[in-house]
Amino acid sequence: MNVTVRGRRQHFCTVTFDAKKNAVMLIEQRLLPHEFKVIGTKNFRETALAIRHMVVRGAGAIGATAAYGLAQGACAFRGGDLEKFSAHVEPVWQTLAAARPTAVDPVNALNDVRRKMAHGKTVAERQALAVAAAGEFADENVRHCREIGRHGAKLIRPGMKILTHCNAGWLAFVDIGSATAPLYAAQAQGKKFHVFCSETRPRSQGATLTAWELAQQKISHQIIADNAAGHLMQRGEIDLVIVGSDRTLGRTGEVANKIGTYTKAVLAGRHEIPFYVAIPLSTIDWDLKRGVDIPIEERHEDEVLGAWGMVEKQKTPGGRRKSTERAYVRVANPTSGARNPGFDVTPAELITGIITPVGIFKPKELWRHRQKLGHF
Amino acid sequence: MNVTVRGRRQHFCTVTFDAKKNAVMLIEQRLLPHEFKVIGTKNFRETALAIRHMVVRGAGAIGATAAYGLAQGACAFRGGDLEKFSAHVEPVWQTLAAARPTAVDPVNALNDVRRKMAHGKTVAERQALAVAAAGEFADENVRHCREIGRHGAKLIRPGMKILTHCNAGWLAFVDIGSATAPLYAAQAQGKKFHVFCSETRPRSQGATLTAWELAQQKISHQIIADNAAGHLMQRGEIDLVIVGSDRTLGRTGEVANKIGTYTKAVLAGRHEIPFYVAIPLSTIDWDLKRGVDIPIEERHEDEVLGAWGMVEKQKTPGGRRKSTERAYVRVANPTSGARNPGFDVTPAELITGIITPVGIFKPKELWRHRQKLGHF
Repeated sequence: MNVTVRGRRQHFCTVTFDAKKNAVMLIEQRLLPHEFKVIGTKNFRETALAIRHMVVRGAGAIGATAAYGLAQGACAFRGGDLEKFSAHVEPVWQTLAAARPTAVDPVNALNDVRRKMAHGKTVAERQALAVAAAGEFADENVRHCREIGRHGAKLIRPGMKILTHCNAGWLAFVDIGSATAPLYAAQAQGKKFHVFCSETRPRSQGATLTAWELAQQKISHQIIADNAAGHLMQRGEIDLVIVGSDRTLGRTGEVANKIGTYTKAVLAGRHEIPFYVAIPLSTIDWDLKRGVDIPIEERHEDEVLGAWGMVEKQKTPGGRRKSTERAYVRVANPTSGARNPGFDVTPAELITGIITPVGIFKPKELWRHRQKLGHF
Repeated sequence: MNVTVRGRRQHFCTVTFDAKKNAVMLIEQRLLPHEFKVIGTKNFRETALAIRHMVVRGAGAIGATAAYGLAQGACAFRGGDLEKFSAHVEPVWQTLAAARPTAVDPVNALNDVRRKMAHGKTVAERQALAVAAAGEFADENVRHCREIGRHGAKLIRPGMKILTHCNAGWLAFVDIGSATAPLYAAQAQGKKFHVFCSETRPRSQGATLTAWELAQQKISHQIIADNAAGHLMQRGEIDLVIVGSDRTLGRTGEVANKIGTYTKAVLAGRHEIPFYVAIPLSTIDWDLKRGVDIPIEERHEDEVLGAWGMVEKQKTPGGRRKSTERAYVRVANPTSGARNPGFDVTPAELITGIITPVGIFKPKELWRHRQKLGHF
């Protein structure tokens, strides 16, 4: 999407690959919304760490990052021995797959690249195929998001108030986003609407990333505490909910997404507010049979016990010059600990529809439409 | 309750009155959990501001503070003219009543003090009656909380996992608390259990005040993001929910409480987890006929857009000595705004029972038992 950087409007993707430097180029999302910066990772280990430490996050974006990371790891191999090359690639695959265990996109992306590169007859051919396959994965992600927007925009009527959770925006994909795609498409059609970004504690991706995206695109929006969604629904102030997903089960229609998504779905169900999940095809897990078996990442308790933000700082003691700097503040009682599950699972019965690149489906109908949805 | 201050265990109440100085003495709750400090207000306007700015917060505590504030305002009058005295007291009443519009305790407390002081035949008598009435209100609040504990402790079985929201602890009352009273009573009976304190954004009273209280009393607990309650319920990790209330409608059983309470009630309902509300009698509003008519305070958007906490600070540039200081960090996108409703209303159908000083009632039975509940 377009971003205003130092007064100039420029197009950016979340993830790209610099083949000359063998570097994965990423928007450093932990600095947003306060600073916009693109960084490059030197090797696949740095790329895996960028996923783990959330330099890049979001289903599609970490899928593309993992794909490029595998190509990056493959290209770092020197020599022509195919057996040694395969032995070299295996730990690259493992390291990138293990970086965020709840998400399925990286695994799908990594398998895709590995399958395609196997067609190469030499190391050099396989390296070239890996780079091409990763690029195709990223391009397909963008096409998918555009199609999600086309289908999802039909759900948006002028004047609607729409709730989102976390960030399933273009920053979470290569471009355009999943949950935001219908918003951007509806805006392009000239529709006016209002978005409530739920803050999404503990990491506040709604307040930081989604709000930043919507502000950049000049879409009317307000941030709310996660606690406020129920009250607004009760007072008739929310007409539609659209969220993303980190893993959607093709067999059951269950949706794993950022912690708090399940709560929003339960509230929407009570108030009979349509609750939609927007996903590219790479987010569908066709294997897993039960949502309860999706691994739920337990993250560090410091995320819950405090918050990151910009703090005003006096440059000289007693002086008037002030600057802001990024800081972590400890909010909670210092002698208390925390639980911090990163994701939750929403059952199919609470989901009105799944917005995919090939149309909108009832969650329980995904399996029946699996061929159309890319599962063979 | 007992607090360890500089290594010594001492008993404190949240609100007391210093008749000699005509000052309302308050624990400065905005400094907790990082600093424990008692402050005194100079006059009724300062007392009202202490309520408005949340130096003191919580249903019972602001009730007692308002009562003492009215006595403080009355005692500040010089002279013997009863008519002038009444004209002096009226704006005191108004100012204190307007400080937190959602709560009913201050209004009940103020009416109680005004009614009792009217029996005085001279200004001096009325002033003495006002101080006595405020003291009685505070003492009754403590007795009520103790009785809530006695009734509520029966709900707690050893090994239970209990969810609370916000702070309805002793800091929210004069002593003991409402939602925490059953916990303290069950602990005194030797029962072991675990408490999840939901953070309670935007002001994080669960993470700061309730966690601090439970740590001071050595009750096993963990803080969770408000988003995590649904997931924990889904996985069978919560057995009981106890919250407080800022206003409970005696005619309908509807409960106004901190924003997010309604969400927890909806989730508990879905998972068939008992959901209890603990209240002293002063929290019951016998007049209002519909929950939708309870005024919901819209608070400043900065609460949602950032967080307060302790930030590490290097005392000398490049030096090793570090200290922490209280700071506000801006978390959200700087060009976005927020909605910030402070409270929500939970309907009777989602509430298993109301724990009162005179027993546990179904919310719709409050009106039938109104005489027992102090309404004549």
